[in-house]
Amino acid sequence: MKRISIDMDGVMADVYSHFIELHKADFGETLIREQLNGKTEDEAFPALRRHVISNGFFRNTPVIENSQRIVQKLNDRFDVYIVSAAMEFPNSLVEKQAWLNEHFPFISWKQMVFCGSKAIIRADYMIDDHFKNLDYFTGETILFTQPHNVLTDAGKHKRVTTWEEVEKIFFP
Amino acid sequence: MKRISIDMDGVMADVYSHFIELHKADFGETLIREQLNGKTEDEAFPALRRHVISNGFFRNTPVIENSQRIVQKLNDRFDVYIVSAAMEFPNSLVEKQAWLNEHFPFISWKQMVFCGSKAIIRADYMIDDHFKNLDYFTGETILFTQPHNVLTDAGKHKRVTTWEEVEKIFFP
Repeated sequence: MKRISIDMDGVMADVYSHFIELHKADFGETLIREQLNGKTEDEAFPALRRHVISNGFFRNTPVIENSQRIVQKLNDRFDVYIVSAAMEFPNSLVEKQAWLNEHFPFISWKQMVFCGSKAIIRADYMIDDHFKNLDYFTGETILFTQPHNVLTDAGKHKRVTTWEEVEKIFFP
Repeated sequence: MKRISIDMDGVMADVYSHFIELHKADFGETLIREQLNGKTEDEAFPALRRHVISNGFFRNTPVIENSQRIVQKLNDRFDVYIVSAAMEFPNSLVEKQAWLNEHFPFISWKQMVFCGSKAIIRADYMIDDHFKNLDYFTGETILFTQPHNVLTDAGKHKRVTTWEEVEKIFFP
């Protein structure tokens, strides 16, 4: 069975919506996604580092549209692993697992991987929003569009902008 | 650079010593490792499930002899990852990371992987005490002796009983 490695932040978890909401609370400014195109997440959100180490940030991030339905469909047909770079922020570990249990209850603990570098991941496909993860992966790579990557040429990676596009790749 | 995946429990962390100590506190009985040969960890320690979900169990496990010196030596020469099956017990995630930071401070968060199944790990070598992890690994496999595996033929895996034997494999 083909194995798919699926990233959390920026692929399943809508961290941009959450950062935009917190930015408004912090600074009274309503950011539009398009304004953030081409900026790193740190450039886009000056208070990012403070938020990601605070309790509740990862636990309360909204889910990206259609990810639940389509991850479940992938999970019925493929060997799915949820692979998240969680090690930099130790408080995120328990929150991310609780978030997965709530929003993706069909994903068992055996399918969860929290790591630092993703260079150690062996799978047939990787869905991720960061080039640093996709560039060293040995299988097929799918770049999920987010403002930080949208102005960069996808290169050898297949770019998708919605989960429906992911669905079409695996269920053509 | 060759990549080595190193297990925590039973390879770096001396969970048997910890279980034996807790078993004595629970039941007043001093178990000898040899008595436990051929038993699974659940068979050897009837209170195991209660202990592994309790606060402090992983945080307070002693370090296996010579593992610190030799993991550091490996880390200087190879691409080392610490890969632990931690997902079954969510409270273990933060404790395991704190334990690594204390006893193996030269291991960065980028080198830590907490997972359920290890089938997703890509490396050249895996050092582990469980056949279920080694059997599906695609690289070279090193079985670290513990009472639960000592009576089983190592098969295609290279068996080691001490960290000095690991050192001889990588620094012949």
